[in-house]
Amino acid sequence: MELIFLGTGAGVPSKERNVSAIALTLLQELNSIWLFDCGEGTQHQILHTSIKPRKIDKIFITHLHGDHIYGLPGLLSSRSFQAGEGLLTVYGPKGIAEYIHTSLDISGTHLNYPLKIVEMNEGIILEDDKFTVHAKLLDHGIPSFGFRITEKDKTGELLIDKLINIGIKPGPIYSQIKSNKMVQLEDGQKLYQKDFIGPNKKGRVICILGDTRSQKDYSEFVKGADLLIHEATFTSDKVELAQNYFHSTNTEAASLAAKSSIKQLLLTHISSRYQTEDDQRILAEAREIFPETYLAKDFFQFHIATKN
Amino acid sequence: MELIFLGTGAGVPSKERNVSAIALTLLQELNSIWLFDCGEGTQHQILHTSIKPRKIDKIFITHLHGDHIYGLPGLLSSRSFQAGEGLLTVYGPKGIAEYIHTSLDISGTHLNYPLKIVEMNEGIILEDDKFTVHAKLLDHGIPSFGFRITEKDKTGELLIDKLINIGIKPGPIYSQIKSNKMVQLEDGQKLYQKDFIGPNKKGRVICILGDTRSQKDYSEFVKGADLLIHEATFTSDKVELAQNYFHSTNTEAASLAAKSSIKQLLLTHISSRYQTEDDQRILAEAREIFPETYLAKDFFQFHIATKN
Ligand SMILES: [Zn+2]
Ligand SMILES: [Zn+2]
Repeated sequence: MELIFLGTGAGVPSKERNVSAIALTLLQELNSIWLFDCGEGTQHQILHTSIKPRKIDKIFITHLHGDHIYGLPGLLSSRSFQAGEGLLTVYGPKGIAEYIHTSLDISGTHLNYPLKIVEMNEGIILEDDKFTVHAKLLDHGIPSFGFRITEKDKTGELLIDKLINIGIKPGPIYSQIKSNKMVQLEDGQKLYQKDFIGPNKKGRVICILGDTRSQKDYSEFVKGADLLIHEATFTSDKVELAQNYFHSTNTEAASLAAKSSIKQLLLTHISSRYQTEDDQRILAEAREIFPETYLAKDFFQFHIATKN
Repeated sequence: MELIFLGTGAGVPSKERNVSAIALTLLQELNSIWLFDCGEGTQHQILHTSIKPRKIDKIFITHLHGDHIYGLPGLLSSRSFQAGEGLLTVYGPKGIAEYIHTSLDISGTHLNYPLKIVEMNEGIILEDDKFTVHAKLLDHGIPSFGFRITEKDKTGELLIDKLINIGIKPGPIYSQIKSNKMVQLEDGQKLYQKDFIGPNKKGRVICILGDTRSQKDYSEFVKGADLLIHEATFTSDKVELAQNYFHSTNTEAASLAAKSSIKQLLLTHISSRYQTEDDQRILAEAREIFPETYLAKDFFQFHIATKN
């Protein structure tokens, strides 16, 4: 589970920061990659990473502003060109389907893979045996969603020492115990899984919020996340500007993290008014409130380790 | 009059070549810049040039394939953000208006400048006192246009030696002669412009063709151009592939130039199957047929000098 920031700027691309896109690589977990937002030039950024477009099988769009969607038609087309054949699902606010279909139709683009478009509402938008994704409406003038990606808890480790102690040696029996509540041996002895499996491994939680003001309280939604990715379009001195333009400051993001038992906070969606020399200030202001804050840059990679 | 190639690849962006866009800078002539096609990432490429988006006041779209239009919504938005306030006119095939309006509307984008969209047919699409632009339908499966940009001839130089010889010294009278067919002096003497102005300065002609097959003959349309910009998606060994996919080869483009009294040929829209090491072959094959051939690269600048 690794995040690759493909675009960390706001509104317009600059030489330092492209417009929004974040890849969540789940290669070990699902052999796939999820993309969050797809600003113009996302496919160009991908050319400079190890990401294979055909591995991207889900794209989540937080909201329909141009700097979050204008790279979508190009990426969908190129994925087809690059032999992506598996189903791709796009989740986004109402309007995303018309945008995609109009762009593909008018440009005469035929995809070589099935495309499913889900216009989502708040609530659980995706659940399989490994992950749940919740969506929540934020406060951005137009519908903008936050996503809470919850990895399901995994069965604990097999207690090998304990099995060997009672004379059961490594073999096919071990995987039987791992996948069955009870296994009966040839001699009639019953082995209960709960006796030979350690505690569940807690799944990881990542919250990725779309653009939003910070007037409402999202602490319930992001509570306890291992990582919160939050916009910080402005610095703390521009709090009114942030409010007027439906954005947040670095310190507003840090305050949410501080009161929500977040482990780590990653700031992104930085206005092009800020230059590289402002990075330290953006970070320092936020760290005064929430020490475990990091500032994303384009091509920044962030690993989220498994727990226990 | 200078061309800046912003994207010289075909279909999908690569690290070496972005998708199609060419800027024609007419800063001296009109204090403006015209753009031909606008593939995804064109505004990103512009960041690495001296081009100011607010100077772009006309965009010509050859055809609606994604690699020629997906950068348009982003460029239009960013031009607004960067204080472009003057009228922008987009010329393109039928469908371009729906594409632009849908993209801007769904993304909630409001432009700070007036935008005019002209869905063009064949013929003269633009004429002012300095330039004429003709459009012609090519052969690309979907409507794809070529443009012939003709600079109007300019009045020749004032023959100063001749004026001095008859005793007329430099002064306001010189500009009167330049701008009037006949000027009468205080002593009643009549000076006829035609006697004191050298031959007209011929205007320059540039032809920029959109994607096209080379089965039909476009020599009438491009005849005598100072510069022909032609696609060369494939090399000569792939002539059948080119035909099937409605594209041209390098040698087909060179053949058109050779029989059309073209001064210089510039090849662009090179398939991503070709690498930098193929450049020499692409060029050499074409030069066997038409020696004055050049191969465009991203950020390549090409100056077209005034004539006489
Ligand atoms: Zn936004
Ligand atoms: Zn085309």
